[in-house]
Amino acid sequence: MVVALRWSGNVLAVLDQRALPGQERWIELDGAAAATQAIRSLAVRGAPLIGIVAAHAAALEVARDPSGHGPALEALAGCRPTAVNLRRAVERVAAAARRGGPAAARAAAEAIHAYEDAAAAALAIHGADLLAGRRRILTHCNTGALATGGEGSALGVVCQLARRGPVAVLACETRPLLQGARLTAWELDRRGIAYELIVDGAAAGLMARGEVDAVVVGCDRVAANGDVANKVGTYAHALAAAAADIPFVVAGPTSSIDAAVASGADIEIEERDADEVRRAGGTLLTLPGAPARNPAFDVTPAALVTALVTERGVVARPDAERVARLLAEPVPA
Amino acid sequence: MVVALRWSGNVLAVLDQRALPGQERWIELDGAAAATQAIRSLAVRGAPLIGIVAAHAAALEVARDPSGHGPALEALAGCRPTAVNLRRAVERVAAAARRGGPAAARAAAEAIHAYEDAAAAALAIHGADLLAGRRRILTHCNTGALATGGEGSALGVVCQLARRGPVAVLACETRPLLQGARLTAWELDRRGIAYELIVDGAAAGLMARGEVDAVVVGCDRVAANGDVANKVGTYAHALAAAAADIPFVVAGPTSSIDAAVASGADIEIEERDADEVRRAGGTLLTLPGAPARNPAFDVTPAALVTALVTERGVVARPDAERVARLLAEPVPA
Repeated sequence: MVVALRWSGNVLAVLDQRALPGQERWIELDGAAAATQAIRSLAVRGAPLIGIVAAHAAALEVARDPSGHGPALEALAGCRPTAVNLRRAVERVAAAARRGGPAAARAAAEAIHAYEDAAAAALAIHGADLLAGRRRILTHCNTGALATGGEGSALGVVCQLARRGPVAVLACETRPLLQGARLTAWELDRRGIAYELIVDGAAAGLMARGEVDAVVVGCDRVAANGDVANKVGTYAHALAAAAADIPFVVAGPTSSIDAAVASGADIEIEERDADEVRRAGGTLLTLPGAPARNPAFDVTPAALVTALVTERGVVARPDAERVARLLAEPVPA
Repeated sequence: MVVALRWSGNVLAVLDQRALPGQERWIELDGAAAATQAIRSLAVRGAPLIGIVAAHAAALEVARDPSGHGPALEALAGCRPTAVNLRRAVERVAAAARRGGPAAARAAAEAIHAYEDAAAAALAIHGADLLAGRRRILTHCNTGALATGGEGSALGVVCQLARRGPVAVLACETRPLLQGARLTAWELDRRGIAYELIVDGAAAGLMARGEVDAVVVGCDRVAANGDVANKVGTYAHALAAAAADIPFVVAGPTSSIDAAVASGADIEIEERDADEVRRAGGTLLTLPGAPARNPAFDVTPAALVTALVTERGVVARPDAERVARLLAEPVPA
């Protein structure tokens, strides 16, 4: 239905998300350098999906160069700084390679991929249980099959809700790169789920007017205390949800939780090229060379998070103790 | 320097703001129908500037058709619903015409224009006094000479601050129509005031990171209780300013205060064409015909407003009593 990744067992290809929704173009990734390029340029994006793609690419790289793959894997692990899944996946494949060579690396990548698919399915059910009866869901960026394993994180919850009853999505366009307008609209259209697109700045006012029953977003990295780094614009939605007294739910696999980072203040926020702000869909919107700032993410403090929905269960009102307790739970089989 | 309006005494022309910053194109408005078209299409926009333009156009219409101008003036007064200045200006000119014919209508229009120029100059000084020592100013939409009389409302405050010391503006691009990216960037560039453009969703995170000293915005209509209708996206900035404990200042002439409206809930919010959301700078961003919502304004509750800056003075923490007291003040000569 919506497929972002093709993995045959030896050929890895990703749907070039930069060309959506106009064009469906596939890019083959034959190793770490090609994956680094695809991830940095956002041909493939979304924290869990980046982890899956990087894992397979790292394993292909280990197979191609069993002794000299170190620098290429390091470049891949560091090519985007905010999401934790990327570095974690590459390091896991590299560690497997050290222990057992290319076969072990490949098994580690397959395990990461299988885990993310299962995690997405499990967290979608937890999220839909939590949001039972809430019909009008506001979301930000893209958190569907184009961003994760399975059907998605926040959008996976929406898909699960839509199986249980009518759902109407308000999809924030998500400037500057318009993952909402380009990708979420495309996924929801394909899935036959009702949606309306809005500019990011319209979200707060619509919440205040009582037009939203819940906000559900994904996460690029969750700190040990429950602070959430996610696509720029998320924090304002969290403030507005709190003011409107509606749930603000963060959905993501535990692979996006980074217990090594104490709080959101310690998460590196990627600053991307100013030209992304100056342009939309390739069109220059302002003076050529107008100065611009382009932080790609922001941090929502845990105090604004009604619930963190993961494959291992739901953490209501996350804090350091509750996040630690979640991570201590046994991983479901 | 930055001129949005030319009025020779009998010829009225406006800079076509839809073409900025790429092109400086002027449109002559020979009466109410041409002004209605220019205002509805956003060739000219900004609550106070719309009032000035509508006043002159109404007076031209009265001169052209001294007895039959009623329907044309009514269409002009109603062509955009949210800003109060438009209807108020047209009704004032129409009332003058009833009392004293074309000459009185023309005098009323001149008085509106002169008052708005003087109001902008006065409120800029009040605002700069209030914000003394605050250097990093975040603003939304366009509130400069392209939106008001004189140098602007919120941007007039910025210009006045910039005369007193260094200022650095964070200009929100203001989707969907990009008045920040297209108009504010152009004005600040022309005035030599340092600025950086950001996407609307980046504002809250930058405030939380301590990178903003104050938020200053304009207003399309202020209710009797101090609630503020302004360009969509404003309310989220107000929430973020409160969370970051920095001033959220609303600057506008008293002609934007509507004492007849009790609270923001009673202000009609214009819904514009969904195609504005689907496109940016003419480029389609999503699926053709993707469903979209496009509220052009939102309401910021008075409780989030640190100060309302007008030509008659500053209302700290506006509420019904303080707004009434301001409006009871004598109008400065």
